[in-house]
Amino acid sequence: MSKIGLWLVGARGGVSTTVSVGLSALAKGLSTATGLITEHPEFANCGLPPLSDFVLGGHEIRRGSLLESARVIEADSGSLPHHLLEAVREDLDEIDQCIKPGILFNSGEAIHSLDKDSMAVTPDSPQDALRQITTDLQEFQRQHQLSGLVVVNLSSTEPPLPPNLAHESAESLRSALERNEESAFRSSTLYSLAAAAVGASFVNFTPSTAALTPATRQILQEANCAYCGSDGKTGETLVKSALAPMFAQRALKVMTWQSYNMLGDRDGEILSHPENRSSKIASKGELIHQILGEDVHSEIRIDYVPSLGDNKTAWDLIHFRGFLDHRMTMQFTWQGCDAILAAPLVIDLARLVAHAQSRGEVGLQKHCSIFFKSPLDFADHALSAQFDALIQKARNW
Amino acid sequence: MSKIGLWLVGARGGVSTTVSVGLSALAKGLSTATGLITEHPEFANCGLPPLSDFVLGGHEIRRGSLLESARVIEADSGSLPHHLLEAVREDLDEIDQCIKPGILFNSGEAIHSLDKDSMAVTPDSPQDALRQITTDLQEFQRQHQLSGLVVVNLSSTEPPLPPNLAHESAESLRSALERNEESAFRSSTLYSLAAAAVGASFVNFTPSTAALTPATRQILQEANCAYCGSDGKTGETLVKSALAPMFAQRALKVMTWQSYNMLGDRDGEILSHPENRSSKIASKGELIHQILGEDVHSEIRIDYVPSLGDNKTAWDLIHFRGFLDHRMTMQFTWQGCDAILAAPLVIDLARLVAHAQSRGEVGLQKHCSIFFKSPLDFADHALSAQFDALIQKARNW
Amino acid sequence: MSKIGLWLVGARGGVSTTVSVGLSALAKGLSTATGLITEHPEFANCGLPPLSDFVLGGHEIRRGSLLESARVIEADSGSLPHHLLEAVREDLDEIDQCIKPGILFNSGEAIHSLDKDSMAVTPDSPQDALRQITTDLQEFQRQHQLSGLVVVNLSSTEPPLPPNLAHESAESLRSALERNEESAFRSSTLYSLAAAAVGASFVNFTPSTAALTPATRQILQEANCAYCGSDGKTGETLVKSALAPMFAQRALKVMTWQSYNMLGDRDGEILSHPENRSSKIASKGELIHQILGEDVHSEIRIDYVPSLGDNKTAWDLIHFRGFLDHRMTMQFTWQGCDAILAAPLVIDLARLVAHAQSRGEVGLQKHCSIFFKSPLDFADHALSAQFDALIQKARNW
Amino acid sequence: MSKIGLWLVGARGGVSTTVSVGLSALAKGLSTATGLITEHPEFANCGLPPLSDFVLGGHEIRRGSLLESARVIEADSGSLPHHLLEAVREDLDEIDQCIKPGILFNSGEAIHSLDKDSMAVTPDSPQDALRQITTDLQEFQRQHQLSGLVVVNLSSTEPPLPPNLAHESAESLRSALERNEESAFRSSTLYSLAAAAVGASFVNFTPSTAALTPATRQILQEANCAYCGSDGKTGETLVKSALAPMFAQRALKVMTWQSYNMLGDRDGEILSHPENRSSKIASKGELIHQILGEDVHSEIRIDYVPSLGDNKTAWDLIHFRGFLDHRMTMQFTWQGCDAILAAPLVIDLARLVAHAQSRGEVGLQKHCSIFFKSPLDFADHALSAQFDALIQKARNW
Repeated sequence: MSKIGLWLVGARGGVSTTVSVGLSALAKGLSTATGLITEHPEFANCGLPPLSDFVLGGHEIRRGSLLESARVIEADSGSLPHHLLEAVREDLDEIDQCIKPGILFNSGEAIHSLDKDSMAVTPDSPQDALRQITTDLQEFQRQHQLSGLVVVNLSSTEPPLPPNLAHESAESLRSALERNEESAFRSSTLYSLAAAAVGASFVNFTPSTAALTPATRQILQEANCAYCGSDGKTGETLVKSALAPMFAQRALKVMTWQSYNMLGDRDGEILSHPENRSSKIASKGELIHQILGEDVHSEIRIDYVPSLGDNKTAWDLIHFRGFLDHRMTMQFTWQGCDAILAAPLVIDLARLVAHAQSRGEVGLQKHCSIFFKSPLDFADHALSAQFDALIQKARNW
Repeated sequence: MSKIGLWLVGARGGVSTTVSVGLSALAKGLSTATGLITEHPEFANCGLPPLSDFVLGGHEIRRGSLLESARVIEADSGSLPHHLLEAVREDLDEIDQCIKPGILFNSGEAIHSLDKDSMAVTPDSPQDALRQITTDLQEFQRQHQLSGLVVVNLSSTEPPLPPNLAHESAESLRSALERNEESAFRSSTLYSLAAAAVGASFVNFTPSTAALTPATRQILQEANCAYCGSDGKTGETLVKSALAPMFAQRALKVMTWQSYNMLGDRDGEILSHPENRSSKIASKGELIHQILGEDVHSEIRIDYVPSLGDNKTAWDLIHFRGFLDHRMTMQFTWQGCDAILAAPLVIDLARLVAHAQSRGEVGLQKHCSIFFKSPLDFADHALSAQFDALIQKARNW
Repeated sequence: MSKIGLWLVGARGGVSTTVSVGLSALAKGLSTATGLITEHPEFANCGLPPLSDFVLGGHEIRRGSLLESARVIEADSGSLPHHLLEAVREDLDEIDQCIKPGILFNSGEAIHSLDKDSMAVTPDSPQDALRQITTDLQEFQRQHQLSGLVVVNLSSTEPPLPPNLAHESAESLRSALERNEESAFRSSTLYSLAAAAVGASFVNFTPSTAALTPATRQILQEANCAYCGSDGKTGETLVKSALAPMFAQRALKVMTWQSYNMLGDRDGEILSHPENRSSKIASKGELIHQILGEDVHSEIRIDYVPSLGDNKTAWDLIHFRGFLDHRMTMQFTWQGCDAILAAPLVIDLARLVAHAQSRGEVGLQKHCSIFFKSPLDFADHALSAQFDALIQKARNW
Repeated sequence: MSKIGLWLVGARGGVSTTVSVGLSALAKGLSTATGLITEHPEFANCGLPPLSDFVLGGHEIRRGSLLESARVIEADSGSLPHHLLEAVREDLDEIDQCIKPGILFNSGEAIHSLDKDSMAVTPDSPQDALRQITTDLQEFQRQHQLSGLVVVNLSSTEPPLPPNLAHESAESLRSALERNEESAFRSSTLYSLAAAAVGASFVNFTPSTAALTPATRQILQEANCAYCGSDGKTGETLVKSALAPMFAQRALKVMTWQSYNMLGDRDGEILSHPENRSSKIASKGELIHQILGEDVHSEIRIDYVPSLGDNKTAWDLIHFRGFLDHRMTMQFTWQGCDAILAAPLVIDLARLVAHAQSRGEVGLQKHCSIFFKSPLDFADHALSAQFDALIQKARNW
């Protein structure tokens, strides 16, 4: 009975903890599959791997246990209820056995300073770092005799990678690696390279641009790995991708789209640093102009509001003109628990990329654009078009 | 140079007045075509009739002039600005010449009582009424040597038509007409029959179900008329049709969708009568259950709030479950001017049905579902699917 | 060491359960006194009874235990966290010992039908009912050697009591009691009479008008009981009482104030019955017209939305005119957990009325108006004025 | 028949234009006095100057006429309707005769750069500037034989004045003036000094801190001038001052109060400059911490959204804890037209300070705190307390 590995980078963060608790709860029949796109009937006969095929492991830089992380979430957002944690605690202990100390390499001030007390490995050189990660992944493959492996980057948002010639091609990046040219690598770069090295699929669920550059994408492709990204589309951007097309379709001229996002917990704390926030804002900002035109006045604010914890709140104001240029207004408030929204997408993606790679469909998984705020190489941000593309794929499988 | 007639039933109501001012303003280059779907580039080469081809006329039961109606709107919602009215007042006077006293026939308590002082014709029998309307339409056709004619029902919402055998087929309705069986006819029934009688296209922009029954639809079809309906999708329902699919696609389980609608002016006053309101609520209510399932707790309230005038305000609460059945919330507020949202749809529909009928494409215009809250015979309420269907049609023309 | 009894009618409902858990948690130092007005520094030297003086008991018509009720709340609104319930479970068991089967007498269709399976006592006559309640209260007094007793009505909202001559004076009500004239009594009437009979203070925390009529008020006064009511001001009405004065003070003319309330759980279910709802709406509705004038268009809707549980959501739209009669808009959304908002008010009231009665300050407690949606005999609904009146009292004590 | 001068600094800005149109419309009986606090019945017998006593004039740095400004507002926010402008245009022309070129002196980059094309006087030295303003005011006094004069600063928000020893006392500022020490003066400083020089009352309706420093206040006091400030409390801050006390009074612990403000037009454009915005944010920010405690997480954002024009939109999120530390949420949206909200306050203030000074009540007008975001020397930001203070004054007059 073959198993598929799901390797979570940031393995005790909120999303990973929710993935871990959720998979265990589903296996025990303690919860429903709400939120899983791959449970739509269209996928029923595609041969996707069943949820029970997945074995979890990962890297983490913070000390502690999955159960402790889960308890914090229970107290904070209440999204992991007490009775569920009691039921799955043994499974969590088991996953903890497969969580290794993560790598911190050129990840930016904010992340480094937050984790002074961490158990992170801080390697001497990119080569060292890559070797360490690769070794951990290979051990995981060997230990569980995995028939497939998916690496998902769920670590904190890094600052943007400054433009770097090394990232223009596989060749130039490999050469930078040989020279141990530190500035060409962030932790996320090393994770995608490690995935390629062990033949794993790779999903960049964060906005960290250093993970999927022309260079790393070429390397993943050459290694026959399936990959996709970037930045899981969980909440406010999801709503925008459903709503913005309405204005375009009905020829209503959006003049202004203001987005105010508030979030607490570690994610919010990291994003309170301007350079990390800039990665996120760039990722979130593409959509409005792509769907509604470059002349829309659109600002995205992200504020760290500790009391909210993982219960993100977003308020958007849309100011638009209709017939005879009359001005009208729409506003919405979104109150969503981030980890709860993200976790099923991670599971969906693991199933989809593992399945594709097992069929030899390697390289960029274009039909996965619906999962991302910044889908790679995909021209359409409209949610319905993205959904149609995914369902089309399911029908062809 | 052939002209197309656009006959507005309720010719001095807010929507018709805005259509009249708008077409004139566009002809004079005083405004942009914002809000017109038929101005999407996909329609550029379809051969749709240009806006300048349309000649306006209609029925109205209230006294006054179009300019007076427009002045009321100027003072109320501000959507028809002063300078525009000055520029188009002569055109409005001209249209006034083509507005005839409307028919009030079995339209329900609310409408009858509101218009005690009206100039409405209250005919003795259905046959009388039909003859009157038909004569007015024919005179309009003759006077302007029209090459096409579109009748659009924009009159106040009638109460639902009680189930009536006469409406099961063309034959049974014709026989009821011969017998002058009053209870089988409301004003809206007679308008659709008159359209059939003169070979005009027919659009039911209201939720009045008596306009398009199996019987009247068969009669329109047999007369080679294009038709569609019902109930223009202008505001809150439009948003729902864009947003509800998002929850379905992402497998988020909507538990509750509450809709609170407030509006003033005549439209609101009519809908403050429970039986008229029930038509509207039935029309607005289909969507949620069709897209999200029958088990959604969904209530629609419509309240008459005089101070709002035509600036409708709607607030919706969506309460849904995600992964691990965690509950989350979305809410939106829509503040839209109804006539401004509706007028361009009326113009779009006039172009589309006139064009279709001129090409011999008669009967139900399924691709027009995007315009309606209760599209006839159309399985999908999702906005994107509706838009795709319309664009597909444009590409095939 | 003297004890004060707090007798909760509806002793295992959401508010009472929260009061019970809360008092126990505060006694154990497991929570803060957030929400308790009587913990304002102004009360520090008033000699109010300490929280630890209170002994709990009550009537309840539903079967089960306090811990079971608490567990339902834990799962539903999450407002009673798991660890707290573990810590206080023994105290809850103890309180359960003092909960007696409640009385159901002429409480309206909705309440009777909801509790078919209840353990309610349905006495033969008003005299029987009153005797039963009085006996239970006396036993509670005796058992705990209480120096004071406060009866708080927290039972489900009854329909309004139809106008009844018996309620015009103490004499006429006593005579109706002698005649066992059933229609003159609802459960809430009997509870206030029982309070008077045993010399207890009485608080009507519900909108049930049958509790505090001219007759029962006279009887309570004659029995030297302190009393106040009606209808705890917990959420949306609280906000209105803070906000409406702003418009009056700044001479902004409110044209419309629409209030949409949604709630689930038993409270919501009862209020989904039109006659029970009418009691609530009458109670909530006084404020706007009292503060802003009779000409404000103001509607209050209360909808039963099961998925919300005790997490009430209210949305209000305020449409107002400013200088030059220009129209502007404010809207607010209130998302509050009802029991969490109500429980501290119940505790505050118990302290305040027990203290007043112990000082011989009997009859209506006018300074308690801040706690109620419909404060008896109090001219001012403005929150600040109510707060000032309470603080003034504290300073005089 | 004696006249009182109302000298508006920024005389063709939105607020001043609305004051001008409004006073004329009220004089002609074309509008109601909505929004004027001084029309509360409590002021009826105070002997406040009637509205018809005021003669308007002012300084302005932009070219154009009041009617042109009014037309822009008509087209933009619609708050000055066409028919009203027609009715008052002659009065506006007359006021235009009394509008002199304004002074720009050390007002910060943003204001200077915006008005490259302005008619502003840019004097060589503080002394020159002061002389110029004083001369204009004296001419206005002479021309209209004014019995009183009120100078209201309505010019664009300046950056904060850097700490400057010159502002610590009247003496040090006078000495800085003698030395023509430029850095000690902004335009607003010179306007308050000019008011003192001609014995006029002075109102600082902007957040510009350079207007009312210890030094200028001492000088105004010594000149027997009445004065008050700063920063008119028109919209979102007004709501906060009504709402924040509610949480304090009910012992609900506010954890977070986030405020998002959007506005367009010139005001918004100026505030899009960080240093000007910092003045505004400092002024708006005092309230929450003063009422709710220093530990509230509270951020105020102000964004320039051109399409909104003068229709300011603000959205606030309040996240608070109740009993048992349960977290709850309130949010509100305020959509108010700034000039419409501000204009009546300016008129109220003119009446109040003119009246006070005429009675010899000079110096700071503490009872006017209700009009300001940052009331000078006033301990209480709570709206009701401020209103009570004003009404108390009215009763004593």
